[in-house]
Amino acid sequence: MKRHISKRAAGVKRSTIRELLKLTEKPEIISFAGGLPAPETFPHNELAEIAADELRGHYKNVLQYGLAEGSRTLRRAVIDWLQPHELAPTLDQLLVTTASQQGLDLIAKAFLDPGDVIFCEAPTYLAALQTFTLFQAEKIGIPLDDDGMNLDILEEEIAAAKRAGKTTKAIYVIPDFQNPTGITLSLEKRKRLLKIAQQADLLIFEDNPYGQLRFEGESIASIYSMDTEGRVIMLFTFSKVLAAGMRLAVLFANDADLMEILVRVKQASDLCTSKLTQHIAARYITEYKMEEHLEQIRECYHIKRNAMLAALEKYMPVEDGVSWTRPDGGLFLWVRLPERIDTEEMFPRAIDKEVAYVIGSAFYPDGGRQGRNEMRLSFSLNTPEEIEEGIRRLSEVVREEIAAKRVGLAAV
Amino acid sequence: MKRHISKRAAGVKRSTIRELLKLTEKPEIISFAGGLPAPETFPHNELAEIAADELRGHYKNVLQYGLAEGSRTLRRAVIDWLQPHELAPTLDQLLVTTASQQGLDLIAKAFLDPGDVIFCEAPTYLAALQTFTLFQAEKIGIPLDDDGMNLDILEEEIAAAKRAGKTTKAIYVIPDFQNPTGITLSLEKRKRLLKIAQQADLLIFEDNPYGQLRFEGESIASIYSMDTEGRVIMLFTFSKVLAAGMRLAVLFANDADLMEILVRVKQASDLCTSKLTQHIAARYITEYKMEEHLEQIRECYHIKRNAMLAALEKYMPVEDGVSWTRPDGGLFLWVRLPERIDTEEMFPRAIDKEVAYVIGSAFYPDGGRQGRNEMRLSFSLNTPEEIEEGIRRLSEVVREEIAAKRVGLAAV
Repeated sequence: MKRHISKRAAGVKRSTIRELLKLTEKPEIISFAGGLPAPETFPHNELAEIAADELRGHYKNVLQYGLAEGSRTLRRAVIDWLQPHELAPTLDQLLVTTASQQGLDLIAKAFLDPGDVIFCEAPTYLAALQTFTLFQAEKIGIPLDDDGMNLDILEEEIAAAKRAGKTTKAIYVIPDFQNPTGITLSLEKRKRLLKIAQQADLLIFEDNPYGQLRFEGESIASIYSMDTEGRVIMLFTFSKVLAAGMRLAVLFANDADLMEILVRVKQASDLCTSKLTQHIAARYITEYKMEEHLEQIRECYHIKRNAMLAALEKYMPVEDGVSWTRPDGGLFLWVRLPERIDTEEMFPRAIDKEVAYVIGSAFYPDGGRQGRNEMRLSFSLNTPEEIEEGIRRLSEVVREEIAAKRVGLAAV
Repeated sequence: MKRHISKRAAGVKRSTIRELLKLTEKPEIISFAGGLPAPETFPHNELAEIAADELRGHYKNVLQYGLAEGSRTLRRAVIDWLQPHELAPTLDQLLVTTASQQGLDLIAKAFLDPGDVIFCEAPTYLAALQTFTLFQAEKIGIPLDDDGMNLDILEEEIAAAKRAGKTTKAIYVIPDFQNPTGITLSLEKRKRLLKIAQQADLLIFEDNPYGQLRFEGESIASIYSMDTEGRVIMLFTFSKVLAAGMRLAVLFANDADLMEILVRVKQASDLCTSKLTQHIAARYITEYKMEEHLEQIRECYHIKRNAMLAALEKYMPVEDGVSWTRPDGGLFLWVRLPERIDTEEMFPRAIDKEVAYVIGSAFYPDGGRQGRNEMRLSFSLNTPEEIEEGIRRLSEVVREEIAAKRVGLAAV
């Protein structure tokens, strides 16, 4: 039946990373691979109480179909919550999505024709790349500096794409504690990025899953909040601030025409998001203290990030050229090994030593040529003790790999 | 910003029906318009108990990300439930989707390239048409007889499309108590439809939201159950047998290659369906008696359908050529008025009389030329008393409309 598969879907390759992740499921393995939020951050008792109450008292509403644009109750709750921040959308500027992955699907459907160019960070969020690939967009990766995307290169690449007669459509960016590197886009660069988008007439898709999870430094205004033209669409998920299993996010778009199209496309995609999960989230936001809850989450990840940084400093062979990022928030950091090391080749040996990571090349839009000596480590799921032990194991693997390559080089 | 909209999304028109539905929201209106399941069929107390228990005791699991293919717990529960029926898929032949609208989105993504031809009933499910339109497929409507799709015409249309050099891809069909007409595809026609699909090498998308809701007559085997080649993909939603607000369905596909692609596409669409709603449904199916629960739902709709049929017989001017279907299950029936009556033109007058329906033309793949004298009535939401009163009002509108047209004709 393979002959019936669309050209669109045929372009989405089986992901190596999914295969590798299967190897990490054994309980004896300390895995830094998954991007899962820490379950201790889920306010489960409160959610249980709310869920039971909604299902008993409001079942006619929460078990029924809802509006494609999302429940007014949830959208109002989000507005009230974010009012004190720089974000103040109106009801019509919010679209509830079945988590941010659906947000990506909707913007790809609504804005990307086959061959359209989308610029993104290199490396960037893997599942966003999959969605852009599915919709047959051309992804152009822009290297990351310590303060985010290299905007000189972005300008060059935009100019080159325009010269080549391509339709340049959008920039996809994760400004805060980016997945996979943990890097944050500086305020100066946010302003310049918006200016570049204005000059080149590009949309900006600003993915903001970790913005609320800053545990160090001062928070930086979103690009969405600086935009006056409706050029920026922001994705804001509940997966890391409430619970991933609720599959809930909100998309912000200030341009009425774009929102109108997004709502139509949303309706064709799943009619509406579960009203049950929407109303549970709305009541949690309204009845409990979000700021206190977020403070606990930040504290949780702060401790874990500190444990990982301390272990990396203690065990990793810096003298051999191993380096890593130092994120101010979020769930991830990024390790760079000497160029001759291939993290995909090394992976089975890490599994033998009962530790796991995600190979760096998986996150590059070029499909695996770049990032071969890099890896993503998540500090979200393990305890500080497990983190220390896991990094100890990983460092051993890295040291052995470097030594083996040195012998190999000497033999040449 | 309109210039940034994709060709794909630009093709999805603002739906007239959404605008019309807004008019039906006033509480004094008896609306037969919406396709909503009856809230009294939601087992809300049981769901409340399960939800609270899952969130308290299993939050690490149900509030976390899950597998793209769906929770094994739910897939096993579905298999055990459907084992005594003719359906016996294996775990790998089931994909959990965020309700069947997402199932439609996934099959469109996975199988339909722009210009591919999909044959469907005329009239058919409105939101399926929207999805096929979004993916730029060519929809060819096949008229309905009392026993389902006219297969002679289907064969002619397939031959004509092949002669024209088009890529004929699939047949979309709702065999049981079809939305919008309530018509059921006969066993003979199911067998012949499968044979036609084999000969023309087409996939069959079998949408089965109402199959469990038969309140009269004998149930008929699904096309999926007769297929030995993996050519049929079946969509099976929980929206009408458990609760629409949970946004939960299961897709059946026996061909491993097609399932592999569907899982990849699912992952790019929303990563996974809410594990919370999946586990609530799985426990309900496992711990409660589905057959007893379904019996109650069938009884509920049976009473309401009877009330609607009785009221139609009592009030409608049959002598003027008004006719309707007599569904053996499901939520809908279909009314045909004399050809000179236009149900869209008549709509404001129905609203004035405080009764609502959905205009027939909305359900035709040709975009509104056919079905202008037809309408869909849903008997799911109102009480038998409201149904009688609503049909009385509607009949008055129809009688006046017929009389006015007669005067108009006489005047010509």
